[in-house]
Amino acid sequence: MGLKTVSLIGFGDGVGRAVSFAGMNPVTGLPLEPQFFSASAEDLDRAASLAESAFPVYSNLSGKDKGAFLRHIAAAIESAATQIVNRANLETALPEGRLQGEIARTYNQLRLFAEVVEEGSWVDARIDSKPSIRSMHKPLGPVAVFGASNFPLAFSVAGGDTASALAAGNPVIVKAHPAHPGTSALVGHAIRESVRACHLPEGVFSLLFDAGVEVGVRLVQHPIIKAVAFTGSFAGGTALMKLAAARPVPIPCYSEMGSVNPVFVLPGGLNKHGGAIAAGLQTSFTLSAGQFCTKPGLVLVPKEDGTPAFMKELGDRVNSTPSQTLLTKAIADRYESAIKGRTSAADATVLAQGAKVEESNAATVQASLFVADYKDLLEHEELAQEIFGPTTLVVGYQDRKQLLAVAEKLEGHLTATLQADEGDLADYADLIDILTRKVGRLILNDYPTGVEVCHSMVHGGPFPATSDGRSTSVGTQAIFRFTRLVCFQSFPESALPDALKSSNPLGIMRLVDGDRTRKPSA
Amino acid sequence: MGLKTVSLIGFGDGVGRAVSFAGMNPVTGLPLEPQFFSASAEDLDRAASLAESAFPVYSNLSGKDKGAFLRHIAAAIESAATQIVNRANLETALPEGRLQGEIARTYNQLRLFAEVVEEGSWVDARIDSKPSIRSMHKPLGPVAVFGASNFPLAFSVAGGDTASALAAGNPVIVKAHPAHPGTSALVGHAIRESVRACHLPEGVFSLLFDAGVEVGVRLVQHPIIKAVAFTGSFAGGTALMKLAAARPVPIPCYSEMGSVNPVFVLPGGLNKHGGAIAAGLQTSFTLSAGQFCTKPGLVLVPKEDGTPAFMKELGDRVNSTPSQTLLTKAIADRYESAIKGRTSAADATVLAQGAKVEESNAATVQASLFVADYKDLLEHEELAQEIFGPTTLVVGYQDRKQLLAVAEKLEGHLTATLQADEGDLADYADLIDILTRKVGRLILNDYPTGVEVCHSMVHGGPFPATSDGRSTSVGTQAIFRFTRLVCFQSFPESALPDALKSSNPLGIMRLVDGDRTRKPSA
Repeated sequence: MGLKTVSLIGFGDGVGRAVSFAGMNPVTGLPLEPQFFSASAEDLDRAASLAESAFPVYSNLSGKDKGAFLRHIAAAIESAATQIVNRANLETALPEGRLQGEIARTYNQLRLFAEVVEEGSWVDARIDSKPSIRSMHKPLGPVAVFGASNFPLAFSVAGGDTASALAAGNPVIVKAHPAHPGTSALVGHAIRESVRACHLPEGVFSLLFDAGVEVGVRLVQHPIIKAVAFTGSFAGGTALMKLAAARPVPIPCYSEMGSVNPVFVLPGGLNKHGGAIAAGLQTSFTLSAGQFCTKPGLVLVPKEDGTPAFMKELGDRVNSTPSQTLLTKAIADRYESAIKGRTSAADATVLAQGAKVEESNAATVQASLFVADYKDLLEHEELAQEIFGPTTLVVGYQDRKQLLAVAEKLEGHLTATLQADEGDLADYADLIDILTRKVGRLILNDYPTGVEVCHSMVHGGPFPATSDGRSTSVGTQAIFRFTRLVCFQSFPESALPDALKSSNPLGIMRLVDGDRTRKPSA
Repeated sequence: MGLKTVSLIGFGDGVGRAVSFAGMNPVTGLPLEPQFFSASAEDLDRAASLAESAFPVYSNLSGKDKGAFLRHIAAAIESAATQIVNRANLETALPEGRLQGEIARTYNQLRLFAEVVEEGSWVDARIDSKPSIRSMHKPLGPVAVFGASNFPLAFSVAGGDTASALAAGNPVIVKAHPAHPGTSALVGHAIRESVRACHLPEGVFSLLFDAGVEVGVRLVQHPIIKAVAFTGSFAGGTALMKLAAARPVPIPCYSEMGSVNPVFVLPGGLNKHGGAIAAGLQTSFTLSAGQFCTKPGLVLVPKEDGTPAFMKELGDRVNSTPSQTLLTKAIADRYESAIKGRTSAADATVLAQGAKVEESNAATVQASLFVADYKDLLEHEELAQEIFGPTTLVVGYQDRKQLLAVAEKLEGHLTATLQADEGDLADYADLIDILTRKVGRLILNDYPTGVEVCHSMVHGGPFPATSDGRSTSVGTQAIFRFTRLVCFQSFPESALPDALKSSNPLGIMRLVDGDRTRKPSA
């Protein structure tokens, strides 16, 4: 028997309900201690009521105070990094090195958001003098965040969604992903202790456990919730979209649902760097066992002199790929079944496979490289669908007409990648133009599986990659998912928020009568 | 028999279908020539297909070229102003002076958007150097715009939605409001001729007529449409939200659905300026026959020494208000029925009424001032609901506790107005804080019925005022409703959009490694 571990409701503990569950070790297939108890309806209501009463206080916190809070969370996570990474490794089978990188990303992105709110210009303050109208971004209200299975740190309890929602000035209620409850509890405690240390109202943060979907559904339907952020499957993401739209008061739902992330190898690129591209592709699609939202799942390759050597290099590398353990047994089962489906279908052929997996309870799988005909790709929808795990599909194309036809037919994706030389870029400007309309991020001669947290990152893309292709869930622009515009007409200096006072006491960059300036307004 | 007038499908004319309708003169109740023919399914498909093929060209137009196009439309409308205003006056009964103001607002807002895109910084270009990632706003795709009955010019065919969607780089398909088809046709021709004169692809603009809702429904469901903009009733706006969310590929829907726009008269304000406030309120709630989305429909008044005089002044002014003609007979009927309902309900009393209306076919109505008890306002939901037309409701409050309770109970509204002196502002900071969470625009010692088109205007507000309280449908920030973020990773100068080139050839303000600057990036 493990300890009873319950939801964190503000500074208090949830009462939980009879349903308990444990994290599972995907390597052994065995449960990990302790047991976690699903939140009760009262736990959720109490978290909601605390968040509601925290909002008026927290939404008015100065940028400096919000920054201090975010930095406190970052420091608390950093100082518990060894314990958190160890637990995450047990619960997810993600390699320690990857998790060390991910935890650094997690506390660094909290610090980046701290910088943004401390500096303060992000609110896009606008002042027009005649008549006196002044607008800025204001926080939206309590946000529901769903932890992601594939990013137990950077997109879970204190991940990008939480960081951006808190930075904008919103209380957050996280629904922990049941695949890593211990990791979630450790990070949750770090946030709770930061709320306490910064003397903030306890409702700024709560963490709910649930073995199933009940708590998540109720959370999205709860009247105090003003926005939803989710990273995960298409089925889960669209279910939340529907719930959010069907509420008596509909709310925005940001679901990041992954994508196939097509790679376009162009003739010049192939002929000049075929070997390097093959190596880079194999690394990218097997990184973290192919469980990135940005994994390249489709590679378009031209028929050139260098193509056979490229394919041989790629096949050899896949053949020597070790077996890898996926996040959960359920994900591994879905992967195996998708691979079997693709293998048995007439329209794709296995070209290479990684090390075989011994029969076991574990979530361990074999990397697979498929090839398919151009014609089949256009006609068989399932070839253009994501398989979560270490596999990709190579499709040959004859000429630019065929390539453009594939690009035009693409649904929304998070990314598209070009492997090209200078000549290709000039020749394929129309391809770039098409892809600009289809994805959130275009990548040249690099791979999609690195997502830098910075001011310009766009981790988004038209549906079905995300629910809302206008925005990003990574980088500082993610903050605008959780704000609304408010303006003040004819207000005197004394009654205006600091960001909008004529004297500009925060020294922020503003749009004053159409000009960007840090100067006071007249 | 009038001329047969059909939809404008790019540069061609629609074939129409058997359903025809005419504009009605609300003053006489008689139809106006000519007959207009509802668009056929083929008309819609052709408009959609033209818009789809125009998008790649139009979305890549330079800011200068888009600016020239918007200015051309503005000039075309300005030069046809007399004819357009005369027709709008016949179709809407709105006074000529109001329509002259509205047409000036219409072409001036096109010119303001021209300025914004010519200057170019609006795309919020962001450059991070290591690794090289660069993001900007890009147009979303063809936008469906629904003309509003209460703004036949500024929120119809070439209104704010069209101007902001075109400015962002999107083709527009307008569904004309059937209450002013002649006005719509005249403005539509001005846009079409501007598309031609600027040598743009014809699909940049189409205009569809329909007597009913069929064309609008199909338009929102059409796969090439990427966003919807609507100003009108709650029923219409929520119907479109549902259609947009239920598509196989859901799209953003911006419905502006009006609101009650509460006015909070505070003790100091009342005692110092009671007479002026009464006069201002009467003007505001009867302006354009009370048919503004921002009409003040609820006024909270304290029990002070000055209150009886204030109420007498307001009542006298309402008693001497002339009768006014509403936009359509249907709107007038709904107004009469709502007034009768409120009059016969036990919870509100008529305090004053304007000039009586002679029995006629016309859409002419009488202004009505109601009073109700504080307790009834909190308990009877219908008292907090909008009645479109020249009426408002005054509710007395005893103390600040009562006032704050009303504010806390408010749903989302477009605006809230305070009538206050300096002492009130200090005493009621908590009221301002509550209202900041409830509305898009807070107004001090002015009236909500003027909506300035500028950089800082926010004409929005939480549901049910709009479908999406994050945004605005008036002012230059409206452009961001029709954009999405795209980033380019490791692209060389030659393959980047001008806005993102290191050399900054457009000279725009950008965020380079976290700093706002017009300088080239390293």
